Amino acid sequence: MSARTGILLVVSGPSGSGKTTLCHRLADEKAAHYSISCTTRLPRPGEVNGEDYHFLTLEEFQEKLAAGAFLEHALVHGNHYGTLRSEVLGHLANGTDVVMDIDVQGAAQVRACEDPAIVRARVDLFVMPPSEHELHARLAGRGTDSEDTIALRMQNAMEEMRHWPTYTYRLLSSTREEDYMRFKALLVAEQLRVSRLPIR
Amino acid sequence: MSARTGILLVVSGPSGSGKTTLCHRLADEKAAHYSISCTTRLPRPGEVNGEDYHFLTLEEFQEKLAAGAFLEHALVHGNHYGTLRSEVLGHLANGTDVVMDIDVQGAAQVRACEDPAIVRARVDLFVMPPSEHELHARLAGRGTDSEDTIALRMQNAMEEMRHWPTYTYRLLSSTREEDYMRFKALLVAEQLRVSRLPIR
Repeated sequence: MSARTGILLVVSGPSGSGKTTLCHRLADEKAAHYSISCTTRLPRPGEVNGEDYHFLTLEEFQEKLAAGAFLEHALVHGNHYGTLRSEVLGHLANGTDVVMDIDVQGAAQVRACEDPAIVRARVDLFVMPPSEHELHARLAGRGTDSEDTIALRMQNAMEEMRHWPTYTYRLLSSTREEDYMRFKALLVAEQLRVSRLPIR
Repeated sequence: MSARTGILLVVSGPSGSGKTTLCHRLADEKAAHYSISCTTRLPRPGEVNGEDYHFLTLEEFQEKLAAGAFLEHALVHGNHYGTLRSEVLGHLANGTDVVMDIDVQGAAQVRACEDPAIVRARVDLFVMPPSEHELHARLAGRGTDSEDTIALRMQNAMEEMRHWPTYTYRLLSSTREEDYMRFKALLVAEQLRVSRLPIR
């Protein structure tokens, strides 16, 4: 009947939680725009600039940071990550939902943001692996990494998972289909939210 | 993984919005307990005491009211309606979701309630008919009522619909299946809400 403004669905969770798969599937189904982050880390084999990330030099990143161009940014394991405001705000104003796959530091910044367009749009979700045991299995999955590397990933994941109570929603991962059904339900429900509808 | 407390899904909307069908279907699928209201109005043909309503005499209703037994109550077209606290609180504590099909006066009382168990549980939805034209068709549907009766129903519905901006969610009715998909999505999404989860 009447247009609404978009949802900014902020999704966090440790490596191995399956959050990135959920976010990409939503975008693949054209249910939301996937917000592409900037990063100073080097592309991994197969990663495409402008698709997986906007790969920036440290100088380029710092320039944008100084210009206030980032909605959120974080330093993770020595690399900078950030989301440009321009990646998000236009879509929201047009009524397009945006999904952001970001870490707990970034999510905290989005939560602290006072821009009314962001306040109106945002909703945050933490995706949890089903159990520590399953998380370990997922992080060790590739079978090519040392026990030390896996132990470090576990430690990082456990640290990140301490933050779930600061989120509005939590999805406890079970099966891939069940997870996606719930994830999609969250978007559908948020589309009903009155605070994003025009008052006639 | 861990138990949560139940959702109190408060659903309002005018006659002809389809809200009652949505609520009953949720209960039929055992997705929620349908909260049965008390009323002083007489049963209509086919209505069963303890199933459609708890039918009370005016004296019985007033006694319970004086005892503070009602979570919400309202006088609608000369009849009293109310929901007993006992109909709701036990289910919520057990982690059972409860759906309440109540009018705007009742919903406002649930929204104003300060009982922490209700504050934690509640979420409200207004179901809107797709258009005035379609609403009129639905209210006239039975084909047995006078134009005056239909006009009065329309007037009541239009008055009730003014209240939708006071709700958290609004469902604009389209098809029966589409409506139920969204309604169910709201329940699924609310099941992810952190504020109803135990903090480990």
